[in-house]
Amino acid sequence: MKSGILHHVLKYIDLNQLEQEEFMSILSEVSISKKEYLISPGQKVSSEYYVVRGCLKSYYLDENGDKHILQFAVEDWWISDFEAFFGGTPAQLYVEAIEDSKLLVIEKDALDLLYQRIPKFERFFRIKITSAFVALRSRILSSLQKSSKQRYLEFCQEYPNIEKRVQNYHIANYLGIKPESLSRIRKEL
Amino acid sequence: MKSGILHHVLKYIDLNQLEQEEFMSILSEVSISKKEYLISPGQKVSSEYYVVRGCLKSYYLDENGDKHILQFAVEDWWISDFEAFFGGTPAQLYVEAIEDSKLLVIEKDALDLLYQRIPKFERFFRIKITSAFVALRSRILSSLQKSSKQRYLEFCQEYPNIEKRVQNYHIANYLGIKPESLSRIRKEL
Repeated sequence: MKSGILHHVLKYIDLNQLEQEEFMSILSEVSISKKEYLISPGQKVSSEYYVVRGCLKSYYLDENGDKHILQFAVEDWWISDFEAFFGGTPAQLYVEAIEDSKLLVIEKDALDLLYQRIPKFERFFRIKITSAFVALRSRILSSLQKSSKQRYLEFCQEYPNIEKRVQNYHIANYLGIKPESLSRIRKEL
Repeated sequence: MKSGILHHVLKYIDLNQLEQEEFMSILSEVSISKKEYLISPGQKVSSEYYVVRGCLKSYYLDENGDKHILQFAVEDWWISDFEAFFGGTPAQLYVEAIEDSKLLVIEKDALDLLYQRIPKFERFFRIKITSAFVALRSRILSSLQKSSKQRYLEFCQEYPNIEKRVQNYHIANYLGIKPESLSRIRKEL
């Protein structure tokens, strides 16, 4: 179960055998069923999660009960309530499994220790968080400037094959458009 | 002019004398007058900028000519078109000086070399980009859940004393509210 994440990490940094073993030793495995919650608002969030298999979403529920999907995560993606994880504040988001999922868990304390023991991981997580930051800025810019069709195409590029796994209205919610508009766009393409 | 940035870096990582000197040697200085542009759409962006003195804004101009302010930067902040800088794509944003400003410039190539020569900078920039990512996510969540007044108060906390330096309508634009609403909020407080 852990070989995928190692392959993922080795794309960015070189690790010798001992370093690989040390990294693997801090990961724990967790399985979660469809519709189960990994995180709920108010919780302390001391972990981030790497998706080995499955699909999850993180969303915010506003005071009118409307859902706002911030992120999907499929194989090779990381998910958490990142504000809460990095900032030490209580969770504001739900993280919920859309499919039965297998995850690897890193605890914040173990990660901080890992940075001290194998500083190469500073590089790995710097690169990952930079990509996440750039993707988030691009998404904000796209919402200002691009048509729903363009944004749907970008979504399909960012999350290849996810359309088959996620309900229509979830994707529409993520894109900030009506499910009917998404159906129309799909028909046009 | 460079001692401020060194103080800023040393808050996060330890550097010996030689490392400090090497870091300083890759920084160059630039001065820019009020209303001048540091970056315009279409440009290649090979630098990021640390503000020694002054105030700048980055914004996107949509096809109707409407401005959307993404970021302000004052003393000790970093600014660039980060998507373009990290992603190697052409700039989509304007970065414009609101006041006469003094900046320090890091080139992407020099930064990549710095990571190789002094890996501690991986840590420094990991921490900085994580803060930027968390701030951006918080801002998105705030726009979904908080009142204009709350968001104005958060803005004042994030950018202390900036209200005196930036025009009312700039702050309103950043918050996504009408200038009249901002004036009302300020009167109420």
